[in-house]
Amino acid sequence: MPREVEILLVEDNPSDLELAMHALKKYNLANNIEIKRDGAEALDFIFCQGKYTERDIEEIPKIILLDLKLPKIDGLEVLNKIKSNPQTRNIPVVVMTSSNQERDIVESYELGVNSYIVKPVDFEQFADAVRNIGFYWLLLNEPPA
Amino acid sequence: MPREVEILLVEDNPSDLELAMHALKKYNLANNIEIKRDGAEALDFIFCQGKYTERDIEEIPKIILLDLKLPKIDGLEVLNKIKSNPQTRNIPVVVMTSSNQERDIVESYELGVNSYIVKPVDFEQFADAVRNIGFYWLLLNEPPA
Repeated sequence: MPREVEILLVEDNPSDLELAMHALKKYNLANNIEIKRDGAEALDFIFCQGKYTERDIEEIPKIILLDLKLPKIDGLEVLNKIKSNPQTRNIPVVVMTSSNQERDIVESYELGVNSYIVKPVDFEQFADAVRNIGFYWLLLNEPPA
Repeated sequence: MPREVEILLVEDNPSDLELAMHALKKYNLANNIEIKRDGAEALDFIFCQGKYTERDIEEIPKIILLDLKLPKIDGLEVLNKIKSNPQTRNIPVVVMTSSNQERDIVESYELGVNSYIVKPVDFEQFADAVRNIGFYWLLLNEPPA
């Protein structure tokens, strides 16, 4: 039986992805992390479409970490799709992005994001932020199901 | 000029309140915490009603920590009022409660809570949880304004 996905990490930047995975694994914060590198595949996974029709939509991750600038379908559109569908809107979504633009922040909250994190530029601070995010959403927060 | 409120803490249990304040102050996580001990006063504060008509509704706290079992108006109703009003729905709200009942958890997410935390029974674990919550929402999360 496949293990339940704890974190869905949607990130296309290879170095950010590597750093985030390293931080999460180092602190044993996720046994099962699913990685998607563009918005279209993230949506296919979440909504059990395309090559994920076998997946059960009720098996929701404890947290979705979502970059904004993504290939194919951008992060705000992914967020919109998740938060406007009754089957998925309760899944906690944390936007984790390099954008600190007021427009992106406000739009994310308007769409119903649970939390918005600006990636620290410094490598160690970024790893530290990922560790804190992982700890908070995997060990402290009570997921919706 | 009054300092901007960083945390609105809505809690009626005196020992939980004391412990939370102690943890937040010990780690310098909040210079300005506003405390409300029932749901009616919390709503008056948030919506600048009653004795808070002088307050500016656009001065939003970085986080609202909301107990569920509150006198006068209960926490779920407070959450509902915040999240169904365009002027306040973007304010991050963390439910911090002793209830781990599925009904309360699901209802909170349905109403749009940003995060749901079950208070640890152990004193030290509770203080630790408050420290983590404060760190996450005051220092890591980017607030909506």
